[in-house]
Amino acid sequence: MAVKFARRMNHLRASEIRELLKVTERPEVISLAGGLPAPEFFPTEEMKAVTLKVLDEHGRQAMQYSTTEGHPPLRRWIAQRMNARLGTRVQAEEVLITSASQQGLDLTGKVFLDEGDEVLCESPTYLGAINAFRAYGPRFVEVPTDDEGMIIQELEKRLLACGRVKLVYVVPDSQNPTGRTWSLARRRAFMEVISLYRIPVIEDNPYSEVRFEGEGLPALKSTDELGLVVFLGTFSKIFSPGMRIGWVAAPEPVFEKYVLVKQGTDLHTSTLAQMQLAAYLEMFDLDANLVRVREAYRRRRDAMVRALEREMPPGVRFTRPTGGLFLWVELPQGLNAREVLAACLERDVAFVPGSSFFPNGGHENTLRLNYSNMPEERIEEGIRRLGAVVRELLGDHGNGRRGNPVLALAQVRGAA
Amino acid sequence: MAVKFARRMNHLRASEIRELLKVTERPEVISLAGGLPAPEFFPTEEMKAVTLKVLDEHGRQAMQYSTTEGHPPLRRWIAQRMNARLGTRVQAEEVLITSASQQGLDLTGKVFLDEGDEVLCESPTYLGAINAFRAYGPRFVEVPTDDEGMIIQELEKRLLACGRVKLVYVVPDSQNPTGRTWSLARRRAFMEVISLYRIPVIEDNPYSEVRFEGEGLPALKSTDELGLVVFLGTFSKIFSPGMRIGWVAAPEPVFEKYVLVKQGTDLHTSTLAQMQLAAYLEMFDLDANLVRVREAYRRRRDAMVRALEREMPPGVRFTRPTGGLFLWVELPQGLNAREVLAACLERDVAFVPGSSFFPNGGHENTLRLNYSNMPEERIEEGIRRLGAVVRELLGDHGNGRRGNPVLALAQVRGAA
Repeated sequence: MAVKFARRMNHLRASEIRELLKVTERPEVISLAGGLPAPEFFPTEEMKAVTLKVLDEHGRQAMQYSTTEGHPPLRRWIAQRMNARLGTRVQAEEVLITSASQQGLDLTGKVFLDEGDEVLCESPTYLGAINAFRAYGPRFVEVPTDDEGMIIQELEKRLLACGRVKLVYVVPDSQNPTGRTWSLARRRAFMEVISLYRIPVIEDNPYSEVRFEGEGLPALKSTDELGLVVFLGTFSKIFSPGMRIGWVAAPEPVFEKYVLVKQGTDLHTSTLAQMQLAAYLEMFDLDANLVRVREAYRRRRDAMVRALEREMPPGVRFTRPTGGLFLWVELPQGLNAREVLAACLERDVAFVPGSSFFPNGGHENTLRLNYSNMPEERIEEGIRRLGAVVRELLGDHGNGRRGNPVLALAQVRGAA
Repeated sequence: MAVKFARRMNHLRASEIRELLKVTERPEVISLAGGLPAPEFFPTEEMKAVTLKVLDEHGRQAMQYSTTEGHPPLRRWIAQRMNARLGTRVQAEEVLITSASQQGLDLTGKVFLDEGDEVLCESPTYLGAINAFRAYGPRFVEVPTDDEGMIIQELEKRLLACGRVKLVYVVPDSQNPTGRTWSLARRRAFMEVISLYRIPVIEDNPYSEVRFEGEGLPALKSTDELGLVVFLGTFSKIFSPGMRIGWVAAPEPVFEKYVLVKQGTDLHTSTLAQMQLAAYLEMFDLDANLVRVREAYRRRRDAMVRALEREMPPGVRFTRPTGGLFLWVELPQGLNAREVLAACLERDVAFVPGSSFFPNGGHENTLRLNYSNMPEERIEEGIRRLGAVVRELLGDHGNGRRGNPVLALAQVRGAA
């Protein structure tokens, strides 16, 4: 005998983004690669005050084991917030606190997926969801999307053709990676189809509170009459990602399944962290801070969009997000984003090639840009260098010359 | 179509202990059921100091995303501590920070187990491990144990007979639930067999630092020449369980598999919590606090052992642990611990029936008692009531009378 891993280990690989982040640790690198929130808005002073309060008043409770479901005042705050902002009617008892929404995704895989089951998702979709679900061995069926969201006819076609659909995974608000937000009409049409086929929906919503333009739209869950929608939320983009606090809002009997798997997965999320967050929400004004965050991200998006308009040659398309942290670029067919990345890394600029966001691969001419973590002037400089590389490679391709992009990337990585 | 869960959901059920804990929330209940550390030793004042320091000096970093592997100073401290205390030669680079050791168990299942694989374990074994592994659909093969640990001939017999053994799971120090510690000879013999068969070993070690009698023994990992032992550690019993911080120490190539699955499971453990803990370990004296914890647990164990000797009728056997939080009781054959529990709950005393700790069931005459979370006089009172119930039921059984224990338990639960 010998050490033998589970079969799933054959298809798991390290997230390209997290590998790239290691390369981008050098301070001179202009990283448009990660999805880091702007740390200058983290309420570190307020955290000191709430920690003192929690430890003074409930220190022993804060450091002791607690229930799997989570800290009741935090669960109540979340239910109220969702109902006020997203048109839902969620009860605190339907909210499970998780170790941020990456855990919500993992628990989803555990609750729903057997090997060979089908997951319908937007094309492209969130890389963290692909990685989380992949551990449970599903087949991903990509549904084409346009600027209004998932294309309904394409969804129905696949629901009819597929025999083992267990869930539909969607990010309707300021999606990662495209930055797109589904229109109201598309949300309604989607929920009609879902109700007809009675398929569970995972509505992943990290960004609806980071919308800096236009009206807030109701969550899919707001029109969920049949108890089909599981909503994943997180404090990562509105408070702090390092604290690892998110939630799952799900109706019975789905809720109790999530609690059951959470129990075996890590018992519960940090009691102290939950109490710190609940005290922050009680003592301080989250919304006042969010106004500042949104304003900063709007300015950074503006800087990036203007720079792209200025620097990109014809034939390059990109989205103009109204919220979130990301923008999506399509290069002319035939141009490979990995090749672009290799040349950009030599000039200290990083981004994420888009093909990672397609669970079945392809789309080598796409890429994702993050604008939340760099000041405007660095964004502009980064796009300037990216534009120069794209123009250069387009010229090269026109001339029939090209290097070995994989080799070049390996070299850059080795040097970093 | 309709909402359909994964097959694994058919064999998962809520931990009996966590359900019992809800019953025992009433303050009048003497709970010998949970595994809660004594909260009076949680360093709440020190936590205030370290939180201020971390947020003052590295606030933005503490609230930002961080690497999956964990906070480097904490990984270094753990490696040094293990090497100093347990005879290992672990490098900081082989330490992955987890959300306490329950997550270490879940990641273990994810890395190693396919449906139908075999897990060898002590009989009885830790309930949290059974629950974590069960999500991955293995078959549990129980290996008989005696006072020195797993019985080697029984282990070999099963290694020869089983065709799909993926790992052996053991808790050699102050095991939960029996309180037993493996002898040095047994550790050596075990590692010889393991090296021969080259089977991965999961050495779960939450209690070796909570030993209050006798010499500390080297970890199994200390003689692991072939890179077969994955060590799971936790700060839950020596610092705070509510913070949810533990670790996996594993050699390459196993280590990178754990990192990979941790990434898809929850990205990383709370940055702030890791930095708070690392600062505590640097600024304060963990060992001074541990001296107080051990002394308190020793006194409580003494109180429980003395009370059992006094109150239990002949034919009741129990362990005398030299560390950890638990003690194991075997009632005379034919007496059902669930029936005893139902009667005890009516008298406001709770414990955990032992059959939960046998993955394949049976052993209805066993039970687990916790002594870490109640002062001596309540432990004595609890054992007095337990003894009275056992004597009563033994008399009843002698007379051929018995109630419906399941119904009685349901009634008590409903009332709580």
